[in-house]
Amino acid sequence: MSKIAFLGLGRMGEAMATNLLKAGHALTVYNRTPEKADALKQQGARVATSPAEAVREAEFVFSMVTDDHALTELTTGPDGILSDLPANAIHASCSTVAPETNRQLAAQHATHGSYLVAVPVFGKPDAAAAAKLWLAVAGPAEARERIKPILAALGQGTQDFGDDPGAANVVKLCGNFMLGAAIEAMAEAFTLGQKSGIPRQQMYEFFTSTLFNSPVYKGYGKLIAEEHYQPVGAPPSIIRKDLKLMLNEGRERVVPLPFANIIFDRLSATMARNDENIDWASFAQRVSDDAGVDNYK
Amino acid sequence: MSKIAFLGLGRMGEAMATNLLKAGHALTVYNRTPEKADALKQQGARVATSPAEAVREAEFVFSMVTDDHALTELTTGPDGILSDLPANAIHASCSTVAPETNRQLAAQHATHGSYLVAVPVFGKPDAAAAAKLWLAVAGPAEARERIKPILAALGQGTQDFGDDPGAANVVKLCGNFMLGAAIEAMAEAFTLGQKSGIPRQQMYEFFTSTLFNSPVYKGYGKLIAEEHYQPVGAPPSIIRKDLKLMLNEGRERVVPLPFANIIFDRLSATMARNDENIDWASFAQRVSDDAGVDNYK
Amino acid sequence: MSKIAFLGLGRMGEAMATNLLKAGHALTVYNRTPEKADALKQQGARVATSPAEAVREAEFVFSMVTDDHALTELTTGPDGILSDLPANAIHASCSTVAPETNRQLAAQHATHGSYLVAVPVFGKPDAAAAAKLWLAVAGPAEARERIKPILAALGQGTQDFGDDPGAANVVKLCGNFMLGAAIEAMAEAFTLGQKSGIPRQQMYEFFTSTLFNSPVYKGYGKLIAEEHYQPVGAPPSIIRKDLKLMLNEGRERVVPLPFANIIFDRLSATMARNDENIDWASFAQRVSDDAGVDNYK
Amino acid sequence: MSKIAFLGLGRMGEAMATNLLKAGHALTVYNRTPEKADALKQQGARVATSPAEAVREAEFVFSMVTDDHALTELTTGPDGILSDLPANAIHASCSTVAPETNRQLAAQHATHGSYLVAVPVFGKPDAAAAAKLWLAVAGPAEARERIKPILAALGQGTQDFGDDPGAANVVKLCGNFMLGAAIEAMAEAFTLGQKSGIPRQQMYEFFTSTLFNSPVYKGYGKLIAEEHYQPVGAPPSIIRKDLKLMLNEGRERVVPLPFANIIFDRLSATMARNDENIDWASFAQRVSDDAGVDNYK
Repeated sequence: MSKIAFLGLGRMGEAMATNLLKAGHALTVYNRTPEKADALKQQGARVATSPAEAVREAEFVFSMVTDDHALTELTTGPDGILSDLPANAIHASCSTVAPETNRQLAAQHATHGSYLVAVPVFGKPDAAAAAKLWLAVAGPAEARERIKPILAALGQGTQDFGDDPGAANVVKLCGNFMLGAAIEAMAEAFTLGQKSGIPRQQMYEFFTSTLFNSPVYKGYGKLIAEEHYQPVGAPPSIIRKDLKLMLNEGRERVVPLPFANIIFDRLSATMARNDENIDWASFAQRVSDDAGVDNYK
Repeated sequence: MSKIAFLGLGRMGEAMATNLLKAGHALTVYNRTPEKADALKQQGARVATSPAEAVREAEFVFSMVTDDHALTELTTGPDGILSDLPANAIHASCSTVAPETNRQLAAQHATHGSYLVAVPVFGKPDAAAAAKLWLAVAGPAEARERIKPILAALGQGTQDFGDDPGAANVVKLCGNFMLGAAIEAMAEAFTLGQKSGIPRQQMYEFFTSTLFNSPVYKGYGKLIAEEHYQPVGAPPSIIRKDLKLMLNEGRERVVPLPFANIIFDRLSATMARNDENIDWASFAQRVSDDAGVDNYK
Repeated sequence: MSKIAFLGLGRMGEAMATNLLKAGHALTVYNRTPEKADALKQQGARVATSPAEAVREAEFVFSMVTDDHALTELTTGPDGILSDLPANAIHASCSTVAPETNRQLAAQHATHGSYLVAVPVFGKPDAAAAAKLWLAVAGPAEARERIKPILAALGQGTQDFGDDPGAANVVKLCGNFMLGAAIEAMAEAFTLGQKSGIPRQQMYEFFTSTLFNSPVYKGYGKLIAEEHYQPVGAPPSIIRKDLKLMLNEGRERVVPLPFANIIFDRLSATMARNDENIDWASFAQRVSDDAGVDNYK
Repeated sequence: MSKIAFLGLGRMGEAMATNLLKAGHALTVYNRTPEKADALKQQGARVATSPAEAVREAEFVFSMVTDDHALTELTTGPDGILSDLPANAIHASCSTVAPETNRQLAAQHATHGSYLVAVPVFGKPDAAAAAKLWLAVAGPAEARERIKPILAALGQGTQDFGDDPGAANVVKLCGNFMLGAAIEAMAEAFTLGQKSGIPRQQMYEFFTSTLFNSPVYKGYGKLIAEEHYQPVGAPPSIIRKDLKLMLNEGRERVVPLPFANIIFDRLSATMARNDENIDWASFAQRVSDDAGVDNYK
């Protein structure tokens, strides 16, 4: 049983924090909008009024926030994590951010005498709630070893990506990209089928029960077959940011990424036209648009 | 137990014919190069010296040949299927051909008093040998019903795509395209990872044991992780032809298909540079080329 | 002064035929819809009621029709050119068709004892009327030499592309592609400018009076700046066919053509949505669509 | 006659500074590597040892440096322009930088009581030497009016893009993009022609004497026809940076830019493989690579 602080209680963060609490840890939580902490409070979590207060006695700190800016503020800003974190404590940075952001924050942790381990997670909020996330872990070897037992409460498996905390984020960005590629591939196939007289649903059922019989293809494929993109797992703007970070890594490493460009452009076109209250997989509608069909619901 | 003719004994055809023989059917086989029939002969098949002779008493005829031209010759040429096929017999056209080719041949069968059912199959030769193919079926309803029990010997499932024989071929072409999209997506991800310091193998293992835990990603992903494209499942020129047929369908139906264009271009660049003795998934090497890395084996 | 037949009196054909008449040649014309020959008749042309009749005494035959099928019918069909063309006569095939079509018709001319020279032309109907076309010529050397003095009446210059009649068509297809590339480039630039606060017109004026000070950029750029695609020079479906023929040549010769793919897809998306009563450059509106701006007129 | 400082004496900067000197202005120059100032010194320029010293009495300051970082350092760093610039002086920022960089520096100038006007230029060093540049100007109206007479010595024309200094940079980035699009278009056309039997040179001559008869197509087209990319106008890494800035503007303004993505990827692949001692138009070799032809010199 450890002393853990959890910062950032969006849908993903709340579900993960709940699982840490269930696992028997002493949990202190913090969220900018304090009402989001209510449910956790009722289950026994202590609620702090600042990141600094939350981490004051922590052995482990988890953060799960929207973007690089929020993470940097949370970590190095006034009343941030580094203003009061005990020496030797470990910061598990779970947000989807640029690899370089975690590298820079890791260096500041090292100066402070603490550790940053990047722990991006794969799975939607329902997978987080069911402790069925997949986790990638990267950072200093000692810290990775110490945090692994804690991570067991969050998901169904953890893979180690070495000492560079940025590496885990590259993996996370690539994972979102690969989902996007599967979405575009299904959209092109189902739309061509539709215009050739084959119901989208029929093609969906065939492929997801044969060659592409996996939860990812089934889950996103259903949305694409029905062209009904509710409920919102993640809005287009959030995943567009992830694709942007991936393309930035490709620029930095000099790797042309034509599929990633197309997905990014699809998400841009989706943002340019729609409101945000729709799942990011709705970029598949651009394939239908360009083919002159309209199945939207 | 039925009288069946099997025409075209490449690696796929031979494996499928063997399974029909094992299922107890009376099998007559034909292949342009007759030596390929030897193994089947030893197992009890009769060997014919022309398509016409092979089909003379058949209730069902299976064909599995290289391309549209070969199928058309086999069906309508001198000494072809239609020169001697009994009335009411059913031609199961399994080759990967243009939807329109099967439509036209189906019309000639109808005139002849026989049936054509398109039965494209999904799976490599080892899946064919293990009777683990997936089959799509389309054509006249009566003929589809009559042939389904026969098909059970070939695979692990059959999906029905209605009366238009072309529909099953559209599905087949889309399936190969979706495989190509998965290959390109892994190639972009693994190459970006590699240039960011993450071993290709590590990324491969993570994704294929989590989000993309399916035989297709595992099988092709291994080739891409190792950049070793042997043995040859299908050479680049064969699948390039399939992508071309899919793009033709997109032209005809007016469906822009940007991912399909990229895969076709990758296969073209692969053909323009390499010999054919390499699996088609080797188009993933173009991603490495463009990133200036060389892992080829 | 020569005896010339002109077959195909669309806007391009009529303008070219008029210039041959003005140059003093004895002109016989034919058009499937005979009323289109009226103006030429008043100017002194003889009007024939079939291709065969038109060419009966011709030294030179010009054809300018919509597509490969129309050209093949006109040349080899019943009452077509080859049914009555005198030996040694030269057929100047001006339509935008597949290189292979002209190669095959050239072989049939050779058998007949006559010649086919491919003479695709560059320029809109107003350039044709002003005898300001540019001409590419390819075919047997002797025939090329004989026809060049006649071609002088049609344009401002002729370039020779050797003995293979298909070569001139490859050049023509590449020319239309290069126009398409200039259109897409301007559309991307003007739209980015617009969303950055720079009026489209301002950017248009700057570039077409500096780096891109040429009639092509001025002419198409004006349409794109104003997003007003009238009058119709050529509808999207016609130029989409040309891009298709170019991509076919790329397939045959194994040349990946990513820009050509994008232009073809833009034209497909335009066809899938709009009526045909709009200039092909209107595919530039897809750039605006994807950026969420609407300037259409 | 005005007092002018010129900072940054690369090939472009030196040529521009020389023309200001010839026009009779009192010129002070500064370059980090001082030897590059020798030729200007002999022609009468004063040589300063820091930016601050150079601008101390200036009415106008021109800067022409490599990138955003260098410009920001030069302007706001220790001993930079703003440490000693007289009130009301005008800084003509000529470098190809992000629109936002000039916007931010303009704000600092305003605080300082001076002005920044963005003046990106179009043309290679030889055009700069011949005073044949084209200039885009944007910034505060008063400053624009005051600097225009000075700019007359540098080029053959100036276009005004309003009050936002960033606007001129957007135009500059779009200009480089449009050059890249023309290069790719010619590369695709010439390579397809070559593989169809048409010499690259022949196609080059035809198009650049007809539809694309303009210095830009002639100049870059010659390199592409010969696949000989010497001398180096600008290396691939420099123009890749410009395309990156353009794509960044597209991200910010939410404008999908498919052609720009392709050109950026081509430049990345070129950087990943080649040394830098080659002109950026050499990205056209990637088209040849993908088609399996090798004409490099």
